[in-house]
Amino acid sequence: MSSIDKLTEYFKRFPGIGERQAKRFVYYLLHKDQSYLNELVSLIKEIKSEISQCPSCYVYFQSGGAKSCDICLGVDTDKSILMVVEKDTDYQNIRHSGFYKGLYFILGGLVAPIEKSSNQFVRIKELLKTVEEKAKAKNLNEVILSLSLTPQGEFTEVYLRRELAPLEVKYGFKISSLGRGLSTGLELEYSDPETLKNALKNRQ
Amino acid sequence: MSSIDKLTEYFKRFPGIGERQAKRFVYYLLHKDQSYLNELVSLIKEIKSEISQCPSCYVYFQSGGAKSCDICLGVDTDKSILMVVEKDTDYQNIRHSGFYKGLYFILGGLVAPIEKSSNQFVRIKELLKTVEEKAKAKNLNEVILSLSLTPQGEFTEVYLRRELAPLEVKYGFKISSLGRGLSTGLELEYSDPETLKNALKNRQ
Amino acid sequence: MSSIDKLTEYFKRFPGIGERQAKRFVYYLLHKDQSYLNELVSLIKEIKSEISQCPSCYVYFQSGGAKSCDICLGVDTDKSILMVVEKDTDYQNIRHSGFYKGLYFILGGLVAPIEKSSNQFVRIKELLKTVEEKAKAKNLNEVILSLSLTPQGEFTEVYLRRELAPLEVKYGFKISSLGRGLSTGLELEYSDPETLKNALKNRQ
Amino acid sequence: MSSIDKLTEYFKRFPGIGERQAKRFVYYLLHKDQSYLNELVSLIKEIKSEISQCPSCYVYFQSGGAKSCDICLGVDTDKSILMVVEKDTDYQNIRHSGFYKGLYFILGGLVAPIEKSSNQFVRIKELLKTVEEKAKAKNLNEVILSLSLTPQGEFTEVYLRRELAPLEVKYGFKISSLGRGLSTGLELEYSDPETLKNALKNRQ
Repeated sequence: MSSIDKLTEYFKRFPGIGERQAKRFVYYLLHKDQSYLNELVSLIKEIKSEISQCPSCYVYFQSGGAKSCDICLGVDTDKSILMVVEKDTDYQNIRHSGFYKGLYFILGGLVAPIEKSSNQFVRIKELLKTVEEKAKAKNLNEVILSLSLTPQGEFTEVYLRRELAPLEVKYGFKISSLGRGLSTGLELEYSDPETLKNALKNRQ
Repeated sequence: MSSIDKLTEYFKRFPGIGERQAKRFVYYLLHKDQSYLNELVSLIKEIKSEISQCPSCYVYFQSGGAKSCDICLGVDTDKSILMVVEKDTDYQNIRHSGFYKGLYFILGGLVAPIEKSSNQFVRIKELLKTVEEKAKAKNLNEVILSLSLTPQGEFTEVYLRRELAPLEVKYGFKISSLGRGLSTGLELEYSDPETLKNALKNRQ
Repeated sequence: MSSIDKLTEYFKRFPGIGERQAKRFVYYLLHKDQSYLNELVSLIKEIKSEISQCPSCYVYFQSGGAKSCDICLGVDTDKSILMVVEKDTDYQNIRHSGFYKGLYFILGGLVAPIEKSSNQFVRIKELLKTVEEKAKAKNLNEVILSLSLTPQGEFTEVYLRRELAPLEVKYGFKISSLGRGLSTGLELEYSDPETLKNALKNRQ
Repeated sequence: MSSIDKLTEYFKRFPGIGERQAKRFVYYLLHKDQSYLNELVSLIKEIKSEISQCPSCYVYFQSGGAKSCDICLGVDTDKSILMVVEKDTDYQNIRHSGFYKGLYFILGGLVAPIEKSSNQFVRIKELLKTVEEKAKAKNLNEVILSLSLTPQGEFTEVYLRRELAPLEVKYGFKISSLGRGLSTGLELEYSDPETLKNALKNRQ
């Protein structure tokens, strides 16, 4: 296998990339000069040492010496609220919207209804430990389950509520989920029954 | 202009139909036998006499002698709630979902922010009259504004709330809007700030 | 079934129309006044008497007393060339392009490889009769098979060539097919092997 | 700017990649272990030394000591025909189709009608030199211009024919272009006038 094909194979495994685009990436790199490739290479090589995972919320952040991310350390962060999200890009979108001022917890994935093995990247134990520690220290008012409204997202929400229930009873914090209803752009003519039901139930 | 072109012009004005498809409709009809065309023609010709508009809620319905639609006359209808919708297809989608048991009011269109003239098909006056009559008769607990979450839908909602406010104050019924938040299938990674804001505000 | 549903059923059978759009057509008509509906109805009702099928080429045309279409009767038409096309909309597109000055023959459909029954609308016999009459009268230089480059179009071309072969031998006219190769907008990076083969073979 | 953002900027410049997908690439790499990153990094770093550009046809190939690509050196290659293509991915698609057995020449880009500067990557001079050398050595029967049927592809074809014309006259080789007409899947109802014109002109 030629180096073109080998590198194509690597790019094919990048998220959302097929054979053709992977090959275009290779030709794109072949057209660049070596100094450009060296810069790219050193960024990729050092990404894992430059970027740490916050030991509290598991978000990836530029450490530069700091042990935790800026939100976990932030003086303006409302540390009595913990929002559980699936992944870093969800975290970034919510953070970017600017409406939430509390702590986050990156779950690392969703719980799959069937394959037990898929749970290995999902930090359920770590979430329970974090919640219990904060609750014990009387430092937790609310856990917000902030998951996509997809079948697996809904399954994960039910699963997390069940896992968190004993702690909720013991320590008395609140568990909430994002509100459901009409999202921007939705036309009633085309909305599904589930969304209509939620929109009607949550009318105000 | 040939009859093919004339009929094409008519079909071109059907909602969502362009020149090419309009012409295909004409050839489709040319291939049908005359008896088929006659049946189609009598259905079109009589649609307006067969179908009445309910004088209470303005929905189109098969009259067959009845003066009002089955929901306005229905014994199982909760007549203390009135849901305002934009058009018949919204009404049908909501009715079909089965989660709402009250009365409807078909507004007939949305209120345009700029062109005043566009209001001519929107039944604002009729809505106000209906609401006042029901409220006066102590027959109204809630008006649900059930509009698409589009810019014009949102403008219309604000407009209707302002128009209905004096009656709300005078008679004490409730005005509500469909709940906002995550709708089915929404992925947090791609959701807009407005939807995130609503989902967070309406968490439960 | 209500008249709305009945008419929806009719519109659903129009080419390319689904349930939802069919229903929108009905509401569109309900919003129009009766005089508009009457005009539409009389156009549909009379389309088959206003429009004749040319007895020579089988194209639909506005007769107005004429027995044949304007191309079959035209003094500028090159009557020594006959182009076989599948359907009226193909005919119109080719005629509209303005590059062809000969006669047409509307086949009425494509020959299906399997179902023999599908041949009932395809005018094979009529084509053979037309070609023989013109050839016998020493009035035919070329038959152009002008069919879409789809599997069924290609099958029909092969079929027609075989059916026309005896007449070709007997009378000495030419049978041709539309040239194959790159069509407008085609990018070589994405073109299929068959098109590349044709483009290479037909290079000039 | 964090390392995540810096690397995102690099990936954003990859062909067809936007901000969001670029960021997903970064998170994808963060999830991989360091040994995986090191393999990817060494492939990227060495791609330019592993892969040479053939000095005759300018295609990228795995050199492994060879001075020219396998087609330029191949004993089965018909060296009397030279096909000019825009880029490596065109070359690969044509080569993969298996219908062409001659030499290639990778132009490196298309000639832009306006911006003269865009010509810097297009190997016009190199093409003329290659063609003249081969023609002088009585080693050239045909130059096939094999360019996409896009506006810029057509402009480039015209441009190359004009540039090659003096050599064609002097040495007597043939210049051809890929055939035009119906490409696979094309439906006559929707084909543009230019394609119809070509298909009619090139009928056979």
